[in-house]
Amino acid sequence: MKALAVLHAAQLVTLAGPARPRVGPELAELAIIPDGGMLIRDGVIAAVGSSAEIAPQIPADAEVVNGSGCVVLPGFVDAHAHPVFGGNRVEEFELRARGASYEEIAAAGGGIRSTVRKTRAASEAELRAQTLKHARWFLQCGTTTVEAKSGYGLTTADELKLLRVIRSLQVETRLELVPTFLGAHAIPEEFTDRREEYVQLVINEMLPQVVQEGLAEYCDIFFERGYFDEDTTRRVLTAAKGHGLKLRMHVDQLTNSGGAALAAELGAATADHLEQTEADGIQALARANVQPVLLPGSVYALGKTRYPRAREMIEAGLAVVLATDFNPGSSQTPSIPMVLSLAATQMKMTPAEGVTAATINAAYSLQRGDSIGSLEPGKVANFSMFDCADYRELAYYFGVPLTHSVYVRGERVFGAAS
Amino acid sequence: MKALAVLHAAQLVTLAGPARPRVGPELAELAIIPDGGMLIRDGVIAAVGSSAEIAPQIPADAEVVNGSGCVVLPGFVDAHAHPVFGGNRVEEFELRARGASYEEIAAAGGGIRSTVRKTRAASEAELRAQTLKHARWFLQCGTTTVEAKSGYGLTTADELKLLRVIRSLQVETRLELVPTFLGAHAIPEEFTDRREEYVQLVINEMLPQVVQEGLAEYCDIFFERGYFDEDTTRRVLTAAKGHGLKLRMHVDQLTNSGGAALAAELGAATADHLEQTEADGIQALARANVQPVLLPGSVYALGKTRYPRAREMIEAGLAVVLATDFNPGSSQTPSIPMVLSLAATQMKMTPAEGVTAATINAAYSLQRGDSIGSLEPGKVANFSMFDCADYRELAYYFGVPLTHSVYVRGERVFGAAS
Repeated sequence: MKALAVLHAAQLVTLAGPARPRVGPELAELAIIPDGGMLIRDGVIAAVGSSAEIAPQIPADAEVVNGSGCVVLPGFVDAHAHPVFGGNRVEEFELRARGASYEEIAAAGGGIRSTVRKTRAASEAELRAQTLKHARWFLQCGTTTVEAKSGYGLTTADELKLLRVIRSLQVETRLELVPTFLGAHAIPEEFTDRREEYVQLVINEMLPQVVQEGLAEYCDIFFERGYFDEDTTRRVLTAAKGHGLKLRMHVDQLTNSGGAALAAELGAATADHLEQTEADGIQALARANVQPVLLPGSVYALGKTRYPRAREMIEAGLAVVLATDFNPGSSQTPSIPMVLSLAATQMKMTPAEGVTAATINAAYSLQRGDSIGSLEPGKVANFSMFDCADYRELAYYFGVPLTHSVYVRGERVFGAAS
Repeated sequence: MKALAVLHAAQLVTLAGPARPRVGPELAELAIIPDGGMLIRDGVIAAVGSSAEIAPQIPADAEVVNGSGCVVLPGFVDAHAHPVFGGNRVEEFELRARGASYEEIAAAGGGIRSTVRKTRAASEAELRAQTLKHARWFLQCGTTTVEAKSGYGLTTADELKLLRVIRSLQVETRLELVPTFLGAHAIPEEFTDRREEYVQLVINEMLPQVVQEGLAEYCDIFFERGYFDEDTTRRVLTAAKGHGLKLRMHVDQLTNSGGAALAAELGAATADHLEQTEADGIQALARANVQPVLLPGSVYALGKTRYPRAREMIEAGLAVVLATDFNPGSSQTPSIPMVLSLAATQMKMTPAEGVTAATINAAYSLQRGDSIGSLEPGKVANFSMFDCADYRELAYYFGVPLTHSVYVRGERVFGAAS
């Protein structure tokens, strides 16, 4: 494999720093190198510095990318997404525009359940094709790693189908997918009057098979009124931990149910959503070193106005993560730049804090902080180039496709050479 | 020029209908042809129908575009934009993320005035290059006509410079620009204590020269506390009308100043913004047949939550228009699909209403409803193809670059052939 070099990036945004998630004022420290350069050998970053420092180290036969006028960032790491599903929910979207609430639509058999019907009806090949389209979107938006949840199958066979699609896609796309088992996403229709039976199925049948096939790194659950209650959540996640899975949790999205405190108690890696979380929940997360994963795309897409309290979380020392929550019902964006815009305009996070939250902090939340999330020697050469000279433009403009090109392990997977 | 044909579009969204702006329930009528086809000769639409109807009419040497799996729409018409400016305002954007208000930043010499300084310092060539970049963004987002305001020069020479850039760009880009003179955008710094002198300059020097050189079709003004008051607005716009210009107005954006009623009284073509407009203003617009131009991008980007009352306006029979308000301070998006997302999620307009508001209704607001804004025989062949099978996906997904290709007068100006 020929060496690859980048020279003359207007800003090489390295995110170099301590080997741990960034907290407090560290979130704003991006370690930017102006007129930056980078040398890559065998898909791994060999050297990072000014163009003047890097140029003499470049082998004669290396491919050299001209970064003039461009910002270079670590590939975005999207730590919360639901990219595998059948169909879409444009009909419900239209109903919501006409005034129906998300909860009303769910109560009428829509919502997650409607995607479950379409996902069950889809073959593995169909799901693979649709997810591949989503994978191209992620790459096009500059993201190189995505956490991918199951949760639209809700039978043992269908949950395994989704997780196998995720695994098989690692052959077809260069986007890295981190699999999470979310069998406890909703109670499926056929178990409406037998909720406990479904929970037993998740614990006694799905979990063991998922683990046996090595199909997931994490287990997640939707802890929310009408979905899974505290006792059930405790049982499912304790079982998952017993199987060696790490934990992520959907908490405090629609109601403040003490989800943040429960995530802290259970030692989850992340507590996700947190729109309704108050000061006590934030303190609980801080004490237990749980990373909050904030999903402003879903607040926006549901037409709500209560965003998670990002500033309080940063001030409390939490290692905040931003993610898309890409899914067909409540957050139909695969774009981290769009999330950076939402974070700045709706949650008062600066563009720098947003970039940290969607790169190095996200990488640590997926236990990959040692290999991705920053541009430092020894790390995997996942990076994205954008057609702008200042990284802040990624949050400042919105709806503009600024991505110039995207590289995974030192190979270009989107965009043209330059 | 060879004939061009489109066949097998999943949805050919024609917007065919009466030769006037659409009101009330008409806003939701898109006149969609499934498996649609279109024949184009000399840049003009010759026939529209099902693929079965169109196929036999296609000459043997025509170029045939395969629309399978794609939605085809009239090119979007963006009826309110400020695409000519120097620099950007990322620093202020960061300050706002840190908690400063738009008004505070403006009071400290930022806001419009900071862009005025950068725009005055830029040469005509520099402005042309930057505006050309913006033009590419508009085309990439599926827009083929953009209203383009001056207003960042605020001296006679600089206002003329901006309008000349707009005119000269018509040679360099296929994006159609409709020029509007907005000398009354703000009181420039050097006139802070001589406001009336600046108004005199606008009326007695700028307006006559703009008209003499034929540089504008419309005159606009920012009617708002701290900018231009009612008496001044009346004088400037009456003078503009006397010179034969048509009127557009920025009204009721930050405060309800009775701007809608004033627009009605002055016979403006459009009243734009209207975030603070109440029922009486809506009724005034209805009585005078003024088209409201709604700009949800600026509400979003300023982190505000009060959107214009789109539903009340539709119910009152107004021919609603949606536009981007693309500008460096308060709406940094050139994307109509992004605006369709905002309209659906934040203003409860359906995707169909949004599409009508950003095509045929926008075209009529610029006195171009007879030539663009719908796909009907005799109209200019401006159209955009999107990588989705249902037009609603354009509002449903956000931050996703769905544009497949864009055509102006029957020639492809963005994307690949298919």
